[in-house]
Amino acid sequence: MTKIRALIFDVFGTLVDWRSAIARETQAALSPLGIAIDWPAFADAWRGQYQPAMDEVRTGRLPFSKLDALHRRNLDVVMQNFGLGGVDEPTRAQLNLAWHRLDAWPDVAAGLARLRSRFRVAPCSNGNISLMVDLARRNGLVWDAILGAEFARDYKPKPVVYLSAAAAFDCEPPEVMMVAAHSSDLAAAAAVGLRTAFIARPNEHGPGQGESRASVAVDLSAASLSDLADQLAAIESR
Amino acid sequence: MTKIRALIFDVFGTLVDWRSAIARETQAALSPLGIAIDWPAFADAWRGQYQPAMDEVRTGRLPFSKLDALHRRNLDVVMQNFGLGGVDEPTRAQLNLAWHRLDAWPDVAAGLARLRSRFRVAPCSNGNISLMVDLARRNGLVWDAILGAEFARDYKPKPVVYLSAAAAFDCEPPEVMMVAAHSSDLAAAAAVGLRTAFIARPNEHGPGQGESRASVAVDLSAASLSDLADQLAAIESR
Repeated sequence: MTKIRALIFDVFGTLVDWRSAIARETQAALSPLGIAIDWPAFADAWRGQYQPAMDEVRTGRLPFSKLDALHRRNLDVVMQNFGLGGVDEPTRAQLNLAWHRLDAWPDVAAGLARLRSRFRVAPCSNGNISLMVDLARRNGLVWDAILGAEFARDYKPKPVVYLSAAAAFDCEPPEVMMVAAHSSDLAAAAAVGLRTAFIARPNEHGPGQGESRASVAVDLSAASLSDLADQLAAIESR
Repeated sequence: MTKIRALIFDVFGTLVDWRSAIARETQAALSPLGIAIDWPAFADAWRGQYQPAMDEVRTGRLPFSKLDALHRRNLDVVMQNFGLGGVDEPTRAQLNLAWHRLDAWPDVAAGLARLRSRFRVAPCSNGNISLMVDLARRNGLVWDAILGAEFARDYKPKPVVYLSAAAAFDCEPPEVMMVAAHSSDLAAAAAVGLRTAFIARPNEHGPGQGESRASVAVDLSAASLSDLADQLAAIESR
């Protein structure tokens, strides 16, 4: 294996538990208005608009827009679908920032710090830079740089997002490992020459509702970032 | 004053002492080849090619190229001028990375950590991302993001470099303060609406050879990053 010099990470689902936080934040924002809905279902519906919204950018129908802007468009759609068309503008604007207040899975902060001691590390997420900054500060994550969609000005799984991250670190694609809990993300990274590590997040979409193993060929498969650090250390010491 | 939410920093000269390190690294690379020249003069000459090289990009005559690539072009020019045309390719390639091994001025690591506890912070340098990453690791600096020329794909003092940094942090220009030891950089930042803080680096170009005070109007003027942190804390507590 070519020596790995940098690790780049998917964030939503891989490093942070978006579903619990979005359900919690939506409840906190809307229940004072007398609204009672299925909060996790609302989170799922909001997230459900994620890929279609990015497709508008990927296909060139919409110029590049930060994910915050897409999230806001999606929120308005989902509010309408849940019969919440009357919720006021300031509440919507504030709720949209819920994506900046997600909590990391328990292994992430310590595991990332270990990995950073050996490799350059950056998020390679579809989330915008300010969103990544807020998640890092909230969860005590230290990155070398914030790469990904806003840097590339396009959305994963477009090749430019992975390749621009490798280039920013002065790496050839096989010197970079993409770390994600989603087989589709890893397949796209592998297709442009990156190494891949799958992290199991079996509860991403609710208890037992997540990928517990990769459905594509990957270089490594791990139960947590600590497990990944152990596996990479074992390879290095060979 | 509008509330300041982010600080962005010039790096070469403002945070790191490029001249001492480039002189030292050049000597370390070339003296084993039996070369004896005025090392600080070589450092000055190499840095002297900096603005003309970036002008090629600013004017559109050259597509955006990382500063590492411009430094390498400039190194070849300066080697020729110093009668060192025979120095081999591996030596040149290795010496070019000297810019990744600069030491911070003594106040920087602690001062930046203090400032980061109150503000979002990023370099807004003409140096490329990998160069910023290496300087941060070498000197124990923690950034929220790496912004500046490679993110903007143009070089300061073009407005897009300052404005893209503000936009990445979701800030309006007056919510961002540009921190630099160079009046020209601060004038360009102020011209597009940013706040400005001058840091005195009177020895940047050698003993007593640097800007000890700003030659343009600035919002704050400080002797060090700690002094800047004190002044910003005093403003916040008013």
